[in-house]
Amino acid sequence: MASESGKLWGGRFVGAVDPIMEKFNSSIAYDRHLWEVDVQGSKAYSRGLEKAGLLTKAEMDQILHGLDKVAEEWAQGTFKLNPNDEDIHTANERRLKELIGETAGKLHTGRSRNDQVVTDLRLWMRQNCSKLSALLRELIRTMVDRAEAERDVLFPGYTHLQRAQPIRWSHWILSHAVALTRDSERLLEVQKRVNVLPLGSGAIAGNPLGVDRELLREELNFGAITLNSMDATSERDFVAEFLFWASLCMTHLSRMAEDLILYGTKEFSFVQLSDAYSTGSSLMPQKKNPDSLELIRSKAGRVFGREDKEAVFEVSDTMSAVLQVATGVISTLQIHRDNMARGLSPDMLATDLAYYLVRKGMPFRQAHEASGKAVFMAETKGVPLNQLSLKELQTISPLFSGDVSHVWDYGHSVEQYAALGGTASSSVDWQIGQVRALLRAQQA
Amino acid sequence: MASESGKLWGGRFVGAVDPIMEKFNSSIAYDRHLWEVDVQGSKAYSRGLEKAGLLTKAEMDQILHGLDKVAEEWAQGTFKLNPNDEDIHTANERRLKELIGETAGKLHTGRSRNDQVVTDLRLWMRQNCSKLSALLRELIRTMVDRAEAERDVLFPGYTHLQRAQPIRWSHWILSHAVALTRDSERLLEVQKRVNVLPLGSGAIAGNPLGVDRELLREELNFGAITLNSMDATSERDFVAEFLFWASLCMTHLSRMAEDLILYGTKEFSFVQLSDAYSTGSSLMPQKKNPDSLELIRSKAGRVFGREDKEAVFEVSDTMSAVLQVATGVISTLQIHRDNMARGLSPDMLATDLAYYLVRKGMPFRQAHEASGKAVFMAETKGVPLNQLSLKELQTISPLFSGDVSHVWDYGHSVEQYAALGGTASSSVDWQIGQVRALLRAQQA
Amino acid sequence: MASESGKLWGGRFVGAVDPIMEKFNSSIAYDRHLWEVDVQGSKAYSRGLEKAGLLTKAEMDQILHGLDKVAEEWAQGTFKLNPNDEDIHTANERRLKELIGETAGKLHTGRSRNDQVVTDLRLWMRQNCSKLSALLRELIRTMVDRAEAERDVLFPGYTHLQRAQPIRWSHWILSHAVALTRDSERLLEVQKRVNVLPLGSGAIAGNPLGVDRELLREELNFGAITLNSMDATSERDFVAEFLFWASLCMTHLSRMAEDLILYGTKEFSFVQLSDAYSTGSSLMPQKKNPDSLELIRSKAGRVFGREDKEAVFEVSDTMSAVLQVATGVISTLQIHRDNMARGLSPDMLATDLAYYLVRKGMPFRQAHEASGKAVFMAETKGVPLNQLSLKELQTISPLFSGDVSHVWDYGHSVEQYAALGGTASSSVDWQIGQVRALLRAQQA
Amino acid sequence: MASESGKLWGGRFVGAVDPIMEKFNSSIAYDRHLWEVDVQGSKAYSRGLEKAGLLTKAEMDQILHGLDKVAEEWAQGTFKLNPNDEDIHTANERRLKELIGETAGKLHTGRSRNDQVVTDLRLWMRQNCSKLSALLRELIRTMVDRAEAERDVLFPGYTHLQRAQPIRWSHWILSHAVALTRDSERLLEVQKRVNVLPLGSGAIAGNPLGVDRELLREELNFGAITLNSMDATSERDFVAEFLFWASLCMTHLSRMAEDLILYGTKEFSFVQLSDAYSTGSSLMPQKKNPDSLELIRSKAGRVFGREDKEAVFEVSDTMSAVLQVATGVISTLQIHRDNMARGLSPDMLATDLAYYLVRKGMPFRQAHEASGKAVFMAETKGVPLNQLSLKELQTISPLFSGDVSHVWDYGHSVEQYAALGGTASSSVDWQIGQVRALLRAQQA
Repeated sequence: MASESGKLWGGRFVGAVDPIMEKFNSSIAYDRHLWEVDVQGSKAYSRGLEKAGLLTKAEMDQILHGLDKVAEEWAQGTFKLNPNDEDIHTANERRLKELIGETAGKLHTGRSRNDQVVTDLRLWMRQNCSKLSALLRELIRTMVDRAEAERDVLFPGYTHLQRAQPIRWSHWILSHAVALTRDSERLLEVQKRVNVLPLGSGAIAGNPLGVDRELLREELNFGAITLNSMDATSERDFVAEFLFWASLCMTHLSRMAEDLILYGTKEFSFVQLSDAYSTGSSLMPQKKNPDSLELIRSKAGRVFGREDKEAVFEVSDTMSAVLQVATGVISTLQIHRDNMARGLSPDMLATDLAYYLVRKGMPFRQAHEASGKAVFMAETKGVPLNQLSLKELQTISPLFSGDVSHVWDYGHSVEQYAALGGTASSSVDWQIGQVRALLRAQQA
Repeated sequence: MASESGKLWGGRFVGAVDPIMEKFNSSIAYDRHLWEVDVQGSKAYSRGLEKAGLLTKAEMDQILHGLDKVAEEWAQGTFKLNPNDEDIHTANERRLKELIGETAGKLHTGRSRNDQVVTDLRLWMRQNCSKLSALLRELIRTMVDRAEAERDVLFPGYTHLQRAQPIRWSHWILSHAVALTRDSERLLEVQKRVNVLPLGSGAIAGNPLGVDRELLREELNFGAITLNSMDATSERDFVAEFLFWASLCMTHLSRMAEDLILYGTKEFSFVQLSDAYSTGSSLMPQKKNPDSLELIRSKAGRVFGREDKEAVFEVSDTMSAVLQVATGVISTLQIHRDNMARGLSPDMLATDLAYYLVRKGMPFRQAHEASGKAVFMAETKGVPLNQLSLKELQTISPLFSGDVSHVWDYGHSVEQYAALGGTASSSVDWQIGQVRALLRAQQA
Repeated sequence: MASESGKLWGGRFVGAVDPIMEKFNSSIAYDRHLWEVDVQGSKAYSRGLEKAGLLTKAEMDQILHGLDKVAEEWAQGTFKLNPNDEDIHTANERRLKELIGETAGKLHTGRSRNDQVVTDLRLWMRQNCSKLSALLRELIRTMVDRAEAERDVLFPGYTHLQRAQPIRWSHWILSHAVALTRDSERLLEVQKRVNVLPLGSGAIAGNPLGVDRELLREELNFGAITLNSMDATSERDFVAEFLFWASLCMTHLSRMAEDLILYGTKEFSFVQLSDAYSTGSSLMPQKKNPDSLELIRSKAGRVFGREDKEAVFEVSDTMSAVLQVATGVISTLQIHRDNMARGLSPDMLATDLAYYLVRKGMPFRQAHEASGKAVFMAETKGVPLNQLSLKELQTISPLFSGDVSHVWDYGHSVEQYAALGGTASSSVDWQIGQVRALLRAQQA
Repeated sequence: MASESGKLWGGRFVGAVDPIMEKFNSSIAYDRHLWEVDVQGSKAYSRGLEKAGLLTKAEMDQILHGLDKVAEEWAQGTFKLNPNDEDIHTANERRLKELIGETAGKLHTGRSRNDQVVTDLRLWMRQNCSKLSALLRELIRTMVDRAEAERDVLFPGYTHLQRAQPIRWSHWILSHAVALTRDSERLLEVQKRVNVLPLGSGAIAGNPLGVDRELLREELNFGAITLNSMDATSERDFVAEFLFWASLCMTHLSRMAEDLILYGTKEFSFVQLSDAYSTGSSLMPQKKNPDSLELIRSKAGRVFGREDKEAVFEVSDTMSAVLQVATGVISTLQIHRDNMARGLSPDMLATDLAYYLVRKGMPFRQAHEASGKAVFMAETKGVPLNQLSLKELQTISPLFSGDVSHVWDYGHSVEQYAALGGTASSSVDWQIGQVRALLRAQQA
């Protein structure tokens, strides 16, 4: 008979359950992550029951003590799962009953499984969001430190993978660091909505036994309580939000990884990955593959489109590994300043050449066309853009004069971009300061 | 020659462009939504250029006046698109040049297309998020009003589509309203991140011409400026966030629609949709289909997995229609109180029967099993649960006595669920108050 | 030094590897599924090497014998993983070397890891697709048998969850069975493309050592060999196809589950799930939840959007469980014929009423409107449609006469739908015959 | 009154419809694509009605003639849509009635809207799949021709974006062409399942009026008829299959585009895109962006996750443009043979160096390690791998002797990869032959 096997729904079922179905329905394989928060939640709930007069002080103490025992067994790796334990909650309560007897049966009074599951999940996520938050800030900090230290290195900025304009290497680092500060901000918002207590919502109608939800909230240190019992037990917005956060953060890390993979090719040779973050090929002895970066990139797709507990555990682990690997990669990356400098070519100053004419009074659209003609002339002649003679330039526009030679200085070029957010050193310093201030604010 | 057709990249191209490729690359079909904000952004930028000394006061006035003319043409429907206008920005500038001549060519000085596109998009989204915010709050308000007016109606609460416990009809309405308040809160957070000015970021390196970005921010009334020019022109986090917001909001509306479709079947007959939100069948004369609800449900899947401008326009329109239709549906829905009352059956009080025993001192797990046995006994005898005699109940547990008859009162049952968030009238009133307070706070 | 730990890329690396990175990169946790096919592939490859003169007969025999030993250890559960075994392929080769010494190092000659991975995956999938194919046909067969046995049961057909027309219960079963036959057909097509041998493609350029790929194909019983070595090692179309197949099949099972959940509600009461496929509630003693059906439904979303090996293993397990549970559910489901009959109501014959007029010569659009008026009249009077008097009907159209009474017979109604594919018994028999013929053809 | 506006569900509705809801429900904006097939389907159905005795010969002729008139108006652009036309089917029937009067009302006898919609969609898709099939084969043919013409060009093969082994340029082209032949094969399978006639399925129960579905099938030239009327009107497997086909094909084109973008960077400089497939920058005069390739890449994500009619139209248009642009790109692409040759470097022959030792009897794993040591030695000394002296090599293994110099010949290296599918010229010729044979077979 089913009741003998201790199934929770007790005395009613007469048929046996299809074993495939039973296995299919079981979640113990992944929700054992929750053992600690499950004990924590049950302890708080038993205090609530005592306050409401549903447990005596002695019964409560017996339960609290038993739960501590359960936790100890998990912590020491001595907890033994039983084939009938379909989830962590059943397992813990089954063990509690073995330890303290029938009083254990009072713990679930007025609490539904959903009530308990969602409380545990929120407790677990609150803890893990904090950890991920710290890892993310550590990564950003590493990036900002590096941006500060290597502020004087110039290299080509690309759009559409075509060389566009000379920029600072730090400007590139900060473009990614700034994206990550938004992730850091968003994670704090997710945490705010994770940190709301559902316990005391029962199955659907609420809790009818006088349990004080404010007391439970204080016990478990939540920021607020849920407003509606039906919504509380069924909504998983906070899970969807967390997964969306992870997917966006991964998208940012993935883009950074993509740039670094490219910059590390033989053809670009701007950076070199530490051996600690590379692997070789089982066939080709000379290969050194940027596997760490490729893994970061490939994980981006993994976090979409799921909204379940399993996804939370998996994504949380992935994010933790990814953030640490990214921090390691960034802090050990070697850069090749010479190759970076060699990557700069005069045609990247074509925009500056147009601005030269703008400063002499030509409307930008005409200046853009004139500079385009110069590029075309240089290409046709097979010379670099800065090797066109003044005479040649003057066939394009009479506004060109001797001072055009000042255009061909990369250092001077980047220093012009001094508007806030630009690549001039003053603006890069401003960015570093802004990101550091954000980190301080988010840590508080 | 390409330059003659006025393509922006001017004098360099010598080959013609494949017309399929050209059409493929064109976005004018959907980005005409942006005409108004494009003019707005260009006006602010020309003020910035004047301040930086790149336009004279007279040139600026000429441009401002020309742009007003362009806007007027759009507003009056007289703006004529040209086959070469590949996007709204090209179209407006082309027209400006026709109206004021070569000075128009100065407007784009130091501004990249990306700079302009992303500024326009943020301006447009800021405006539309406000509209959607108001529509969403209107829907919530309608729901709360209805919840208050029909607070005394009881009906079956379901889990797994099985009758679970008696609840208030208002409790169901509020479970959905509360979910929507989270959407309303999230939309405000999205708006905060939309409301950041990228203008002045150039293509990648920044703006080299002394344009004051703080002045641009004030002109366009943004809350902050972007920190890094590379990030500013390429990031679309705010688009992804908006689409995620829409998908989560649609999920909530979809769940509500699904419940209402079910409650409106012949078999449930709890509610009846207004004719204004139903359609018929071209074949079956008796049919009245809940098409409005089905459309709401079917739109949920549409907003995922895209991160482009086109998606923003489409999703924004969808959300606007859906929110208004949902408000219409809720405000015109008719409920059948008698059928709702008939939906309640004594077996839904089995939990209360267990609590009866708990109150007499039995541990909950045993009480749950005892109540389960009573359900089984009633089913076996073919009688409703409340028709078991006291004697019969006592064969299950000696704790049953005459006062068990008080259990069989639905009104009394729901009033027990008085813990915050539950279905008791005091708690429903508390929920109504909480949601109203949230609406007031979010409106401010 | 890294080479001492036996890493495949040997003597070159001087830095140590970040342990988080190493764990991140490891796939052994899930690819142990592949142990059997990995041995199978390696045995075939060593035969290919011997034929090409790269192994002596004695070396080959040593390797073959060693690989059999490895397989035996896996089969008996005595294979011991080593912390440095990053994947199943490394693990098996490491063990082979322990068993037979340096000769093991010859096995990988000219083979790349990708070569090996993709061959193993195709072998594994070929095997599992066959198993799933058989399970799927078993489910269809169960459905067809049931459809045949219960051919005489009528019940309401629904569209938009509104009662539409009377149909046979078998017609409903067959609508789902027919959808599954398409899945069965598609799976055969996927298998055809899985069954292509990549081995002998090396890393990218091909195999330079004279290995005969046709011999490998025969050894491993593949249907064809891949055409291009670069494509062969990188393409995973067959994985995407398999996952798409699974998602479409799950969509079909999910729709069937959704119908059954609904038909099993108290309000519909058409079917009753066996206890073997239901579970109870930890809080509400009377509840019996259709968890098997809900799990089938919830799994539908899980298989989308992933294209990796892990997904294949997970989805394959899920499909196997789902198909068996679905077969169990269908074969044990109890139907309530009386409730089904009670579900039929005269308004569902409104279409037939229109056809009655069509047969008397009225254009269908007018007949549809006339029948609609009759429905409205009956609703207004509060009587069933078949209780309108002939006189009343004649106020709508003079074409109504005494023989209209024949319309109100459900059995007669369904028998009209005799066009192929319809719900008449002759057509249902035809469907049963067609599906059985398909099953026979697909099995061959 | 609603019936006056000609809504199909006629005389029953008394309330007006919310105009937002009406617009929301309307599909005319995109389903006008279907005008031609809608007329085609209706013509066949009227022939079926005549055969079944539901239309006289004269009525049928009147309808056929009227439908030809409707088609003529569409073809000439004179068809005028009416604000009440909610979809193409309503529009065509409304116009037919205006042209021929009440007889038009007989056309829909026994046909449901779903019946008609799904038949039209299948007709339209059948036509468009054929067109896409031809475009796809044209692209593959272009690629194979190019592969044949440029068979003698060698360049670096990459894995993980790291230089791996020397390969033929044709081998790269064929790796993508082969992937596309699978798409071509799959499209034929999709077409087979599109080409099944649903007409005659009614709303749900089937067709009760003696319409001969085999006759309809012949009229419309379908390959088979659907088996079950409920399944026939609701299933959209063929849409999901088509979208999956498109997404997989786009993934292949996207990967090719990604490679070409990279090969076209300044840093790689292997290929140069024709001006016809590039665009410039509005800010930077020197830029020439590979927009055609970026658009191909960006479209890949667009086709996922939708299963509606709108998606079919949009995706079909996208695929048509993408296939033509891809054909244009490939046929006009210029390659830089010198840069390709310069991309080859001696370390890419490290695998060949290992094979050299294997041929001298060393187990591959040891040979791989020995070759890795040579790479490390060369890197440490700062010389190319082929500049290590024999003496130096012999410190690594005594098996090295004078003939090692033969390893350093790229042409010789690729010719070794003669196993089927490899990069040797014989194997490339075999691939060209195989793909051409496939094209011929698929065309038939």
